[in-house]
Amino acid sequence: MSAAEETGGEDTPWSEVTPEAARRLLVAAVEAFAERGYHATTTRDIAGRAGMSPAALYIHYKTKEELLHRISRIGHERALRLLEAAASGDGTAADRLADAVRSFVRWHAERHTTARVVQYELEALGDGHRAEIVGLRRKTDAVVRGIISEGVRAGEFEVPDVPGTTLAVLSLCIDVARWFNAQGSRTPDEVGALYAGLVLRMVGARR
Amino acid sequence: MSAAEETGGEDTPWSEVTPEAARRLLVAAVEAFAERGYHATTTRDIAGRAGMSPAALYIHYKTKEELLHRISRIGHERALRLLEAAASGDGTAADRLADAVRSFVRWHAERHTTARVVQYELEALGDGHRAEIVGLRRKTDAVVRGIISEGVRAGEFEVPDVPGTTLAVLSLCIDVARWFNAQGSRTPDEVGALYAGLVLRMVGARR
Repeated sequence: MSAAEETGGEDTPWSEVTPEAARRLLVAAVEAFAERGYHATTTRDIAGRAGMSPAALYIHYKTKEELLHRISRIGHERALRLLEAAASGDGTAADRLADAVRSFVRWHAERHTTARVVQYELEALGDGHRAEIVGLRRKTDAVVRGIISEGVRAGEFEVPDVPGTTLAVLSLCIDVARWFNAQGSRTPDEVGALYAGLVLRMVGARR
Repeated sequence: MSAAEETGGEDTPWSEVTPEAARRLLVAAVEAFAERGYHATTTRDIAGRAGMSPAALYIHYKTKEELLHRISRIGHERALRLLEAAASGDGTAADRLADAVRSFVRWHAERHTTARVVQYELEALGDGHRAEIVGLRRKTDAVVRGIISEGVRAGEFEVPDVPGTTLAVLSLCIDVARWFNAQGSRTPDEVGALYAGLVLRMVGARR
C-alpha cells in the first residue's frame, strides 16, 4: 500500500513538507524503507521511485539519514499532538484516556507503513537526531502518564504501577502498526474503540 | 547484544540446530538481520560473522531465505510450546492465562533480538514458508483464545470481544521485543509479572 492510500484520501500525505519535490521524495522514502529496510535502500532507489534523478534528491536532502530523520520527526510530532489534544480535552480522566487511545490507535492503523519505519529504524538515526526523537518519545510518554496520574488522584483509576502501565498502554497502541491490515476485518475506528475499552480496564477505571 | 548474551547464559542458543557449523551460521544470521535488516544482509556477511567461507555456508543453507525460515520456524515453535505448556497446566483459567503471559513475555524480553527478526521480516519469507509460519501463528492465537474462552465459560472472565481481546493480549506481549532493553530498569520477570496483572484486568478477571 502506498503512503497516499494510507491516508484514505483524507489529505495529501506529508502536506507540511514543501516544496512538492521534497514531499514526493519523502513519500518515496517511506515506501522504500518499509519494503526493503533502511539499510537496503539507496538514495538512488528513492529518487527513482519519485521519478527524479539522484542529483535532484540532493538539492532537498543531503543524506539518506536526513530523510529518515525528517520522517521520524514529523511522525513523532503528529502522534504527540494527537495525544496532547486528547489530554487537554474536557471530561473525566477516563474520557480523556479513551480519547487519547482512540486517536493514537487510529493513527498507527491508518499510517501503519510510516509508523513501522518510524518505530523500527530508530537505531539508524545519527546520535543527535536520535536524541531529539527520544526527547519527543519522552513527551509522548509524559502525556499519557499525566492522564493516568490524574485519574488515580481523582479516585477514578486504580493503578499500582503508573510508569509500567503507561509503557504497556503505549506499547499496545504502537504495535497496531505491526499487525494492522487494511484488508483485515477491523477498521481503524473499530480497533480504537476496542482498545479504549481494554485500556480503561488496564487502569482499573470505575464502571 | 549477541544471541549468546540474550540467553543469559542459561543454555546454548539454538542448541537444537546441528551440526555446530549450522548452529553458528544461524546465530550469525540472527545478529546480522537484526542489525542491518534482511534485505541489506548478504550470505557473505553471515558467513564472515560466523568465521566461515561463503562456500561453507552453502553446505548448510542453500539461500538466505532458508536461514530466515529456519530462524522463524524455530522461534515460532518455541513460543507456541511455551503457551501450550501454560494452557495445559493446573489451576483456574486466570492462573493459566497469567502463566502464559509471563512465559510469553519472558521469551520476548530475553530473546528480543530473535523475536524482532521473526516478527519484522515475515514479508521476506517465500510464499510456502510464509504460509507455514502463518499456520503456527494461528495455533498460537488459538491457544490464548482457548484459555480466555474457558475463563468466560467458567464465569471467571467477562470479555465482550474474545477474538479482539486475544489479539490485543498477544500484541502487548510481542511488542516487548521492540522496547525491551537488557540495560533498562525492569527484568524480564518483572515485565512478565506486570503484564500478567494487566492482562487479567483486560479479561475482567474476578479478583
